[in-house]
Amino acid sequence: MYHHVKKLMYTVKVGDPDPRFGKMLLEQFGGANGELAAAMQYSIQGLNCDDPGLKDLLMDIGTEELSHLEVIGTLARMHLKPTKHDRELADADPLVAVCGGGGVNLFNSAGNPWTADYLKITGEIDVDLRSNIAAEARAKIVNERLIDYCDDPGSKDALQFLMTREITHLKAFMLALDSLDKPPLQIGLIPPTKGLVEQYFNDSTGRDDEGNEDMVGPWNDKKAFRRVDNPAFSPEAMKVDGD
Amino acid sequence: MYHHVKKLMYTVKVGDPDPRFGKMLLEQFGGANGELAAAMQYSIQGLNCDDPGLKDLLMDIGTEELSHLEVIGTLARMHLKPTKHDRELADADPLVAVCGGGGVNLFNSAGNPWTADYLKITGEIDVDLRSNIAAEARAKIVNERLIDYCDDPGSKDALQFLMTREITHLKAFMLALDSLDKPPLQIGLIPPTKGLVEQYFNDSTGRDDEGNEDMVGPWNDKKAFRRVDNPAFSPEAMKVDGD
Amino acid sequence: MYHHVKKLMYTVKVGDPDPRFGKMLLEQFGGANGELAAAMQYSIQGLNCDDPGLKDLLMDIGTEELSHLEVIGTLARMHLKPTKHDRELADADPLVAVCGGGGVNLFNSAGNPWTADYLKITGEIDVDLRSNIAAEARAKIVNERLIDYCDDPGSKDALQFLMTREITHLKAFMLALDSLDKPPLQIGLIPPTKGLVEQYFNDSTGRDDEGNEDMVGPWNDKKAFRRVDNPAFSPEAMKVDGD
Amino acid sequence: MYHHVKKLMYTVKVGDPDPRFGKMLLEQFGGANGELAAAMQYSIQGLNCDDPGLKDLLMDIGTEELSHLEVIGTLARMHLKPTKHDRELADADPLVAVCGGGGVNLFNSAGNPWTADYLKITGEIDVDLRSNIAAEARAKIVNERLIDYCDDPGSKDALQFLMTREITHLKAFMLALDSLDKPPLQIGLIPPTKGLVEQYFNDSTGRDDEGNEDMVGPWNDKKAFRRVDNPAFSPEAMKVDGD
Amino acid sequence: MYHHVKKLMYTVKVGDPDPRFGKMLLEQFGGANGELAAAMQYSIQGLNCDDPGLKDLLMDIGTEELSHLEVIGTLARMHLKPTKHDRELADADPLVAVCGGGGVNLFNSAGNPWTADYLKITGEIDVDLRSNIAAEARAKIVNERLIDYCDDPGSKDALQFLMTREITHLKAFMLALDSLDKPPLQIGLIPPTKGLVEQYFNDSTGRDDEGNEDMVGPWNDKKAFRRVDNPAFSPEAMKVDGD
Amino acid sequence: MYHHVKKLMYTVKVGDPDPRFGKMLLEQFGGANGELAAAMQYSIQGLNCDDPGLKDLLMDIGTEELSHLEVIGTLARMHLKPTKHDRELADADPLVAVCGGGGVNLFNSAGNPWTADYLKITGEIDVDLRSNIAAEARAKIVNERLIDYCDDPGSKDALQFLMTREITHLKAFMLALDSLDKPPLQIGLIPPTKGLVEQYFNDSTGRDDEGNEDMVGPWNDKKAFRRVDNPAFSPEAMKVDGD
Repeated sequence: MYHHVKKLMYTVKVGDPDPRFGKMLLEQFGGANGELAAAMQYSIQGLNCDDPGLKDLLMDIGTEELSHLEVIGTLARMHLKPTKHDRELADADPLVAVCGGGGVNLFNSAGNPWTADYLKITGEIDVDLRSNIAAEARAKIVNERLIDYCDDPGSKDALQFLMTREITHLKAFMLALDSLDKPPLQIGLIPPTKGLVEQYFNDSTGRDDEGNEDMVGPWNDKKAFRRVDNPAFSPEAMKVDGD
Repeated sequence: MYHHVKKLMYTVKVGDPDPRFGKMLLEQFGGANGELAAAMQYSIQGLNCDDPGLKDLLMDIGTEELSHLEVIGTLARMHLKPTKHDRELADADPLVAVCGGGGVNLFNSAGNPWTADYLKITGEIDVDLRSNIAAEARAKIVNERLIDYCDDPGSKDALQFLMTREITHLKAFMLALDSLDKPPLQIGLIPPTKGLVEQYFNDSTGRDDEGNEDMVGPWNDKKAFRRVDNPAFSPEAMKVDGD
Repeated sequence: MYHHVKKLMYTVKVGDPDPRFGKMLLEQFGGANGELAAAMQYSIQGLNCDDPGLKDLLMDIGTEELSHLEVIGTLARMHLKPTKHDRELADADPLVAVCGGGGVNLFNSAGNPWTADYLKITGEIDVDLRSNIAAEARAKIVNERLIDYCDDPGSKDALQFLMTREITHLKAFMLALDSLDKPPLQIGLIPPTKGLVEQYFNDSTGRDDEGNEDMVGPWNDKKAFRRVDNPAFSPEAMKVDGD
Repeated sequence: MYHHVKKLMYTVKVGDPDPRFGKMLLEQFGGANGELAAAMQYSIQGLNCDDPGLKDLLMDIGTEELSHLEVIGTLARMHLKPTKHDRELADADPLVAVCGGGGVNLFNSAGNPWTADYLKITGEIDVDLRSNIAAEARAKIVNERLIDYCDDPGSKDALQFLMTREITHLKAFMLALDSLDKPPLQIGLIPPTKGLVEQYFNDSTGRDDEGNEDMVGPWNDKKAFRRVDNPAFSPEAMKVDGD
Repeated sequence: MYHHVKKLMYTVKVGDPDPRFGKMLLEQFGGANGELAAAMQYSIQGLNCDDPGLKDLLMDIGTEELSHLEVIGTLARMHLKPTKHDRELADADPLVAVCGGGGVNLFNSAGNPWTADYLKITGEIDVDLRSNIAAEARAKIVNERLIDYCDDPGSKDALQFLMTREITHLKAFMLALDSLDKPPLQIGLIPPTKGLVEQYFNDSTGRDDEGNEDMVGPWNDKKAFRRVDNPAFSPEAMKVDGD
Repeated sequence: MYHHVKKLMYTVKVGDPDPRFGKMLLEQFGGANGELAAAMQYSIQGLNCDDPGLKDLLMDIGTEELSHLEVIGTLARMHLKPTKHDRELADADPLVAVCGGGGVNLFNSAGNPWTADYLKITGEIDVDLRSNIAAEARAKIVNERLIDYCDDPGSKDALQFLMTREITHLKAFMLALDSLDKPPLQIGLIPPTKGLVEQYFNDSTGRDDEGNEDMVGPWNDKKAFRRVDNPAFSPEAMKVDGD
């Protein structure tokens, strides 16, 4: 069960409203890496989760993201309000102006409606935690960019608060994944095929227009993999299906 | 530039076509965690990437995923073909039957059109690598489930091939992330707020219908965080905005 | 700020899980007239609302709908769980089976992702209240149909609870609209054009295949309107633009 | 059967084209509350309706909305046409310029494609009428905002015509709902649970940042409801499931 | 302006309703190649068209497609109606059953909402006519498949009517394109680059798993093109940018 | 199998980046008529195709379109890059700036995510070829418009290259359709109804606001059709169902 308290998690203060920045803020309200996406991803993973400890973690953070949704929505609303009575500002976001009367809705900065296609929910807890780690990293960088584009001190403070919390969540999800004590390459139950899993396919070759050629790094060197060059032209090198 | 070789990366052999399984397979063809999503996510990240080594990695794997798309599409096509001339089979997937004549299209198993909303691309390479690690983990588990639902040995073999390659990619992306030598909680340039980042908000409390109560684990214990209970009711405990 | 209590608003008891019914239930979870749509519509209207009393109403009910989301999600999860290990059940909902491992996600009964296009939010409070009245009426009838399709007593009880609450909300929204004391045909500030607003355009004429012809009822009789027959062929009868 | 007459329902006259306003107008062409949404919602409800009188009403108004679609589309086309040959204007709406050559398509003001997710169709006539009442109220306010943002007298006249007709339709739908003689809180056939339906859940409490606290109004006072405060923390007060 | 006559363009007679076939029929109602897509594509092209003759053609056929929409919708409605009171039938299309009460909505056979992304409208009349020719060809084949899957004589008759009209429209659009007297390869005003336009890039090479190798046909033989083999590996052969 | 060569099919040179033009370019990257749409439409048609010659054609061109996707993406990336560090430029495309850090993603010029709804794939080769002919015509005109809006010589050159190739493909698809030797009005196997297929329905009549009346052209004259005027009002003239 949910309860709402009439107090923002972070008190929002805005100097001069900046409707174009308000439009940017919608990215964190109804965008792909925004607060509703986070709230729904974690809460629904929690709903599917049978482990009471991890379920509690997912509900704790999922609920906090609902409070963030309220903060960012309030902030965006304050910046977008003048859109209602100013044609020039309305031109910058006609959807908010004409449809919303200067109010927010679950759109991103381009006016796309929020969609559950943003969510990554598999019902496999370790996989879900990896999706959450990635989600928090994305939310952090989006918040940081908003701060970089922002002139208003009060708005920056609120975004700094939200951005900080993403790191908190990142840490919690990483610790949760570690606590499962699974080898990092073990997902699910069926093991990969030996002999094949160690092969790195070099599917992009040649020299690019800046002169860069095939690169070797820790991610594909001999310590890590056996390299198969141009597998499309030497399929026998893949040696995987015995034909 | 791309080149296509008229040879599948894994030779597909199907015994008795199973159109209902073919419908399931579409999840890996045009679904949220499928091969096109992987191909596009990595290739476009590569296109945005300024580091030639990581760009090469992204193009290598992005290109391999295009070859996987072809394998899974061929496999799905073989299973779905009988749909065309059998009303009962057509009922199981009218979209494939009526619109596609038993051929595949970029839909998932529920007939939803593939959408770029599935992609996670931020233009920040370490963040993108985390999204890729999560994407490979999801693809692995989806492939595993398809194997579990499958009766046909040839189809299982092809899925085992594809599933194995997800682990290869998972490893490569993890090594690439490690090679950046960034502290695991550092994303972007703006540091989180000290004092706030260490707080764990206990936003979900009480006892559930199975008797579970608040749980403490490595992800939220004293070693990791300072705990704030019920922040909605004790906002002063968050001590973050000095009001 | 939001807080979550680990207790369902209605304790869910399910006898034999019925995965096909679980699929139907998703309509109330991630569907057009479902609980998330209600929660978001009211809460975001509340966020945009300047009247503290009506804002409170919208937050009260918006928050309750989040609790309903949790109830229906838990119920659907219980019905869908067996999908994971049973190929035949998985065929009935491959998206839930293959992608979700038998867990729920924000899809409707056809597997469509939830979208903010379901929401009706205008930033005009009396208009929003009318949208909410309609939304509650729709949610009531969808819940009723689910009860009619349901065999499981525990599931029926939970749906009866949720369905009852829609009527409660319907009443509250109707009272709120009444409390604004606006004439029922007054929306916004610009008055309609006299002489034109009283005309009923009879744009559909003739006799249908069952023998029905033009009908007159209280909605278009002489007491209510001046009738213009076949305006496409007698535009002068509309007398509206003085040309 | 439909017939088209080569005459607009309202003759459109535009002085200086204003492409940015043309973009706004798309909201009424291909937007969530626009003319196609109205035309399709009513006409398809009519197609599903077994009552010949109400079916006639729905077809009358559904057909009129098609004529409105033509008016607004013609108006938007006149405003958007200069986009084709002017880079600066094209920047204001690249989708219309690059894809449409300055012509209209079924997009809203943010370029989102029209979707049937905008429609509210339940197959239950009294519920559908409530959805239509709300739809007309929304269309009225959107038209009014367009008038407020508009400088061109001819465009204002056309919008005044369309806006007036929304009020006509609003009235007709309200009279139709009244004619059904149903108690306002009766939807469908299954009655709500007594004892529960009279409870108002106070799910949002405390004092907000502007000092507002819990509010009581005609929508939740003692005359209307029995109040349950903080149900998340006092679930026994809901007394609904006898546990 | 539009007018509606209460008479179907083709009188629909259904023997035993077949709800699964009704679901298939939705493909022609709210699907990608269905009647609404045709109606909107042609009518909006007409609205954008400055040539009065071609505009008339587009409005004639666009309006006829609205009448087809009504026929197919009525047919689908008759087949889907029993869904309302039969759980087993409802399982076959829970969206129609639970949300629509057995009535139709603008969904395709997989329950996807109709979207304007189906439309091809460019504001360039010869290009639009080509899109229409292709659209009619697609609609013909979809109708044919529906006939092939259909057991009910009355439904087959109605589909035969609709299918026949697609051929009529195909012919009219082809004649209209011919009447423009444009060379078949001339689109727009900017000519293609000589020397490059005559090159056929052989981007797919090798031998497939069935033994097929590079094929030459009238579409890429010496009469038609100069062949460039493996351009990715011999970019100099493309001789196009003088670097 | 696919292989990637680190060399663009056309070397991209950009003078001064123009982020607003970069936004326009996204139309050809992730838009309805863009390179991914072409690549996927042809490649998947190829995957469904049983004729080895036509399959080869579809794979040749489908693969070339992937190389085009890389060219246009690189070009757009170069134009959009400055968006990252300039608030004013970011305002012009907040989605690219805030979410993408100035990098590209599969969006169109309005920020809509690419969707498989853009694709036309029927599994009937002659129908698919017609869809491809139309697709190439649309791509040509979109490229031409981009050239018209472009000031940068290097960008114009690259677009001229891509535009030229659309004409090459148009020609190849037209030759392939011709090679099938099918009468132009024969689609599928079921013949249209004689007597009905020759009727042209004049569904749009009257005189428009510019004085245009019913038009006759080669597309609907006596040589081509028997004309039925106002079929909605003279259904007997259609003589098609014998009632």
